[in-house]
Amino acid sequence: MDPTTTLRALLICLLILPAALPAQEALFSRQEIVSPEIHEDKSVTFRFQAPHADSVQITGDFLPTVKMQTPYGEMDVPGKASLVRDENGVWSFQSEALAPELYTYAFIVDGLRATDPNNPFLIRDVASVTNLFIIPGERADLYRVQDIPHGTVARRWYDSPGLGMDRRLTIYTPPGYEASREKYPVLYLLHGAGGDEEAWIELGRTAQIMDNLIAQGKAKPMIVVMPNGNVIQDAAPGQGSRGFYKPAFMIPRTMDGTYEAHFMDIVNFVEANYRVKKNQKARAIAGLSMGGFHTMHISRYHPNTFDYMGLFSAAIMPREDATAAVYDRIDETLKAQMDNGYALYWIAIGKSDFLYPANVAFRKKLDEMGMPYTYRESEGGHIWRNWRIYLSEFVPMLF
Amino acid sequence: MDPTTTLRALLICLLILPAALPAQEALFSRQEIVSPEIHEDKSVTFRFQAPHADSVQITGDFLPTVKMQTPYGEMDVPGKASLVRDENGVWSFQSEALAPELYTYAFIVDGLRATDPNNPFLIRDVASVTNLFIIPGERADLYRVQDIPHGTVARRWYDSPGLGMDRRLTIYTPPGYEASREKYPVLYLLHGAGGDEEAWIELGRTAQIMDNLIAQGKAKPMIVVMPNGNVIQDAAPGQGSRGFYKPAFMIPRTMDGTYEAHFMDIVNFVEANYRVKKNQKARAIAGLSMGGFHTMHISRYHPNTFDYMGLFSAAIMPREDATAAVYDRIDETLKAQMDNGYALYWIAIGKSDFLYPANVAFRKKLDEMGMPYTYRESEGGHIWRNWRIYLSEFVPMLF
Repeated sequence: MDPTTTLRALLICLLILPAALPAQEALFSRQEIVSPEIHEDKSVTFRFQAPHADSVQITGDFLPTVKMQTPYGEMDVPGKASLVRDENGVWSFQSEALAPELYTYAFIVDGLRATDPNNPFLIRDVASVTNLFIIPGERADLYRVQDIPHGTVARRWYDSPGLGMDRRLTIYTPPGYEASREKYPVLYLLHGAGGDEEAWIELGRTAQIMDNLIAQGKAKPMIVVMPNGNVIQDAAPGQGSRGFYKPAFMIPRTMDGTYEAHFMDIVNFVEANYRVKKNQKARAIAGLSMGGFHTMHISRYHPNTFDYMGLFSAAIMPREDATAAVYDRIDETLKAQMDNGYALYWIAIGKSDFLYPANVAFRKKLDEMGMPYTYRESEGGHIWRNWRIYLSEFVPMLF
Repeated sequence: MDPTTTLRALLICLLILPAALPAQEALFSRQEIVSPEIHEDKSVTFRFQAPHADSVQITGDFLPTVKMQTPYGEMDVPGKASLVRDENGVWSFQSEALAPELYTYAFIVDGLRATDPNNPFLIRDVASVTNLFIIPGERADLYRVQDIPHGTVARRWYDSPGLGMDRRLTIYTPPGYEASREKYPVLYLLHGAGGDEEAWIELGRTAQIMDNLIAQGKAKPMIVVMPNGNVIQDAAPGQGSRGFYKPAFMIPRTMDGTYEAHFMDIVNFVEANYRVKKNQKARAIAGLSMGGFHTMHISRYHPNTFDYMGLFSAAIMPREDATAAVYDRIDETLKAQMDNGYALYWIAIGKSDFLYPANVAFRKKLDEMGMPYTYRESEGGHIWRNWRIYLSEFVPMLF
């Protein structure tokens, strides 16, 4: 085959294959739209082709927040900006120069939310899907894939005798794990309500953060286990035997103590199947929101098991009059955990987090008990930006 | 904490957390829309809320195809159907009863393509993102996650000395692999132009097909390696050091022989790092479109290496006057491959595939040489539906 024929064949492929996909009807006339376009000065232009629309707006966490009234009080939510239409029906908006960060956004076209058809990178948070982009530099470089050694990310199923089913988890093994004879420490990293075993690896950029911190010598090589904390699911929506269904935020039995009671099924699986150190000093557990609640309870249910606890925006609301089963013997078991000793009990929360008062109350309880912890207060609220930051700060303190 | 307090806390989470996501402004007033809704009789209702739209259509591979004129002739593309608006501004369309299959679709709102905001399950094909759903039954049950033993899917990086970089691949190890002492055979499964190491696992449902065929006793437990065939990429768009960018269909140097010349980097990595049988009888290679072209060339470049070849809708256009470097010594090496012997040379293509004539010419060449092959002709064209079917048929013939 001569080069001309090769080229012609490739052109046929180029022109015909996309036409077989749904709705590519504008294939031969459309203009190529770039969105988002990140400029040299770190401002970003977003574009959306909609000749017949009356209004196109953008919303995203790079815009200043606005106050919103809710039944539970005033909340900060991402603001909006209006795009301007050009003569070809392409709407655009250029942001200010943005600080390095991973950002998410969506368009609002005539009042309806829409993803950016020119940006195929999407991220699911519970049932919402948004586009994402990264402004490089500073801490955002921890979230990027760099040209450094990379760990392996596996989705693997394990048997949970306690829950009576095979369940799926995500596991990060550090660069060199497979070829090494060394034994590694393990961080168990737990998601929040509405999340699953995909949350930390996708929204949390765990593999990128670990690869980068390890390459920089700031974190020890470790295994990170990201299990599914919804005890009625075998796997994330779409990945389990229930098939495709709309993910829900409230899932039965996630905070009733069942997960905590059977968490050792996961630890036992990991310790039987990976080359890991099997002692308290080599085990850490951390989680965000509901995962912080799980972390608090799991670590006191099993007080000789974990040396490092990370409570990120934890959904802990201890009360003296607690009657829910998960809170049984809380004072006694926290005291046992304290007496047994641990390396780090780390509590992090944002100043505007709706769980801030609950964390104040929890710290007060620990203070009264004399139970040691390290406290980290950040800006912002109950958002993934903070959880990526907390993970990046927590991991260097481990092992 | 008493149960009422727990409930109130969960309600706060439910109401406030989604409000922190972009564009959830209708949080407290919106109605819950179910889309797609799969009915008992296997018809499907699609719904889209758009009170201000003038027209809402749907396109997808469950609709009858229509003819479309292209510069290269008439093509079959998915048709469209119109949704009907109700008094609340919710548009809907109910399909006919659908045959069991994995289907993809998108909406067209006032002429603009839009994904379904009520279906968070999306799939990327090159730069296009569509929603998906599965009608269960028959062969579609191979594409579903069933309550059976599951293999492990890992994204892992390997060193390619030939290409001078670390590269990412996806690898499926069958249920029981980790605990076994057995050695396994390996299928190398290659993507098409515009694809990458995510294509077969996501669009091809490889893990589900393998789990199901193995559980049914129809396929032997095997390892499936899904590498990246774009030699200028270290990983899929968004997963490599180039970061996020719009995936392209035409990528330089994908069909110039470079990948074929260095393919043993992948085989060597797998055989050094996994418990596999290291002989020709335990190696298979298959690919779709460009991956079929790669399969044909790789298997003749390395004629003592693979015992099973699968060319799915292969982009092979051999010419007697071939001058492109990848075609060097084609007759000689094909003859060497034939003389050396193999278990299976499987060629599959759809009747309306634009590569059908090229495959006729290739089979004619093989016939003239006396080179044995098995031929499978299906309905349809150059589409993922066929590639999932071909994989499901090819795998049971292996090892």
